[in-house]
Amino acid sequence: MDSRIRDHADVLVDWSARIEAGDQVVLAVDPGAHDLGVAVAEAVGARGGTVHPVYGAAELTAAYLDGVAGTDTPVAASEPARAATEAADAYLALRGSRNTSTLADVTEDTRAAYRSARQPVREAQMATDWVSTVHPTRALAQQAGMSYERYQEFVYRAVLRDWEALAAEMARLKDRLDEGKEVQIVGQQTDLTLSIAGRDAVNSCASVAYDSHNLPSGEVFTAPESASGTIHFDVPMTVDGQQVRDATLTFEDGVVIEYAATTGEAVIEELLATDEGARRIGELGIGMNRGIDRYTNNILFDEKMGGTVHIALGRAYDACLPSGESGTDSAIHVDLITDVTDSAALLIDGEVVQRNGTFRWEDGFGEETRSRE
Amino acid sequence: MDSRIRDHADVLVDWSARIEAGDQVVLAVDPGAHDLGVAVAEAVGARGGTVHPVYGAAELTAAYLDGVAGTDTPVAASEPARAATEAADAYLALRGSRNTSTLADVTEDTRAAYRSARQPVREAQMATDWVSTVHPTRALAQQAGMSYERYQEFVYRAVLRDWEALAAEMARLKDRLDEGKEVQIVGQQTDLTLSIAGRDAVNSCASVAYDSHNLPSGEVFTAPESASGTIHFDVPMTVDGQQVRDATLTFEDGVVIEYAATTGEAVIEELLATDEGARRIGELGIGMNRGIDRYTNNILFDEKMGGTVHIALGRAYDACLPSGESGTDSAIHVDLITDVTDSAALLIDGEVVQRNGTFRWEDGFGEETRSRE
Repeated sequence: MDSRIRDHADVLVDWSARIEAGDQVVLAVDPGAHDLGVAVAEAVGARGGTVHPVYGAAELTAAYLDGVAGTDTPVAASEPARAATEAADAYLALRGSRNTSTLADVTEDTRAAYRSARQPVREAQMATDWVSTVHPTRALAQQAGMSYERYQEFVYRAVLRDWEALAAEMARLKDRLDEGKEVQIVGQQTDLTLSIAGRDAVNSCASVAYDSHNLPSGEVFTAPESASGTIHFDVPMTVDGQQVRDATLTFEDGVVIEYAATTGEAVIEELLATDEGARRIGELGIGMNRGIDRYTNNILFDEKMGGTVHIALGRAYDACLPSGESGTDSAIHVDLITDVTDSAALLIDGEVVQRNGTFRWEDGFGEETRSRE
Repeated sequence: MDSRIRDHADVLVDWSARIEAGDQVVLAVDPGAHDLGVAVAEAVGARGGTVHPVYGAAELTAAYLDGVAGTDTPVAASEPARAATEAADAYLALRGSRNTSTLADVTEDTRAAYRSARQPVREAQMATDWVSTVHPTRALAQQAGMSYERYQEFVYRAVLRDWEALAAEMARLKDRLDEGKEVQIVGQQTDLTLSIAGRDAVNSCASVAYDSHNLPSGEVFTAPESASGTIHFDVPMTVDGQQVRDATLTFEDGVVIEYAATTGEAVIEELLATDEGARRIGELGIGMNRGIDRYTNNILFDEKMGGTVHIALGRAYDACLPSGESGTDSAIHVDLITDVTDSAALLIDGEVVQRNGTFRWEDGFGEETRSRE
């Protein structure tokens, strides 16, 4: 077996999920993630945990939904799936699609009904030490526009980080954001000010110990209270299956008052019309995973890329809010990404914290910049 | 999709497992049985059941056991697996190995520990409407010494029977065995008499409605009380991974008193030494599935073949015993098969019921034979 697969399994089991002796682990294995499943099963066994392998084949889901569609019976959640998940200490989802278009023929109504029926299963899963990760497959390489070999290298560079060191660096940014009242993003066609007073940033470093449930991760994010100004998103995005290119949003008092895009402007328009919260910012995220060095048309990777900043329209994460306070509420949470490696700066309370993708603690430019200004 | 796969799924779901609206189905899918899994998921959905797909990959089991082997932790059963199975109405196991030697490196001690740890899961499974079936794979074709195409044809001929008609024919034999006191098998190097008074025969026709849990099936079996005489097994067999050819057993008062084989005599010797019950007969089975027309080195098929009779050394099935009575008890249950299509006859209470593989109700030869004798 490719030693990178074993390394991936070790990071997942030890750093991410913190598996210990006696842990009851549900292992959801996509058909394309079989090899990672083998490595993870061995690693869990070696830590003294048990394994219940669940088959995460989207083709079976599509077929089941197809079967139900011809009946009067409503789509239903599986009681055995719920029971298994409730009996689990950890839930490890090994994604590895062999065809990312498998669910293309399932209608949005059916998807919604299935999501809603599975809500108890999902809640049981969220109550465990759950982690979702990605095994490189040819289908995902194709989605990324990359050869299989290169895509494997890409995924393992993103996953096999020195997570302890990255978590420590990310803690520095989290501390600054927690202390700060205002974030300013300056760049090409961009000057956006976000108020973050009283909000908590999350150090999302791919470990349940940090309440971070994706491997890879590598972003620090918070939930701004308000926003004003303009931001340009130069990173190619796919929203609801449609391309969005060079979108620009202008905010006033936290609400989008202008929008434009060279491609997919209608998608943005639709998004904004979803509900009241869809016109507000739910998240400011700062990508810090420098193992991710290119866009791959997969939000799990794209938004973590070092040298990028993203803004999500819609729902805010509770973890960022003071208890009792509610953030932006919405049916959507759509991330839009901007590259900040060229002629760009991120300021917290007027201090340049990142310039052209480099943080001040890497270069010490911060003090210098301030004294010269 | 190959229409035979859909037909297989329909037989499994309707005839074998009798899935109805609201049924909670656990679907254990071997990696090589993915396509059948898709067809079964659709069929279960169409009947109004739900599906919890479990990944039945032997490679994950082997890896888990390998991981545990390096620790002080004992092999343990998965609580989520137990919980899922206990919440199930039906458990459909779709076997389809991609390599029948996957567990070759797992020691017998580890296998025994794993079997023992999983006993609660297995008991929960047996309490459901469980059915085990086989999807043709290249690995199974190889084990059978057949090309993939021919093996697919073989499996579907065995599975896609008119089960209702076969069940009715098998009921005729069951009735004769239930009424009868003595079975005699006569053939080349064979003259064996078995007492079956008071024993119930099982009509094993691949449906939970008949307490039959394998698809394909197609045998009628009972648990003889005693045996005397000699039987020659001319069908090639693999016992404990070793070849056995042309074995002959001689019984007196129900116990083996002589044995011989041209190949694998040592295996027979070992078997007989297992325990007291290993020297007695646990089962007499009569194969009635004429879709199975050749030996494929897979007991699930071989013993169901039309025109064969098999004897199992060791443990008897409770279903054949009058309540309160105990049959042969043993740690083993090893089937040995004899071809009865040539110069052979099966008699019940002196009446020829099968001659050269043809039953009397097919030809009416029975009456004629008797009147001439």
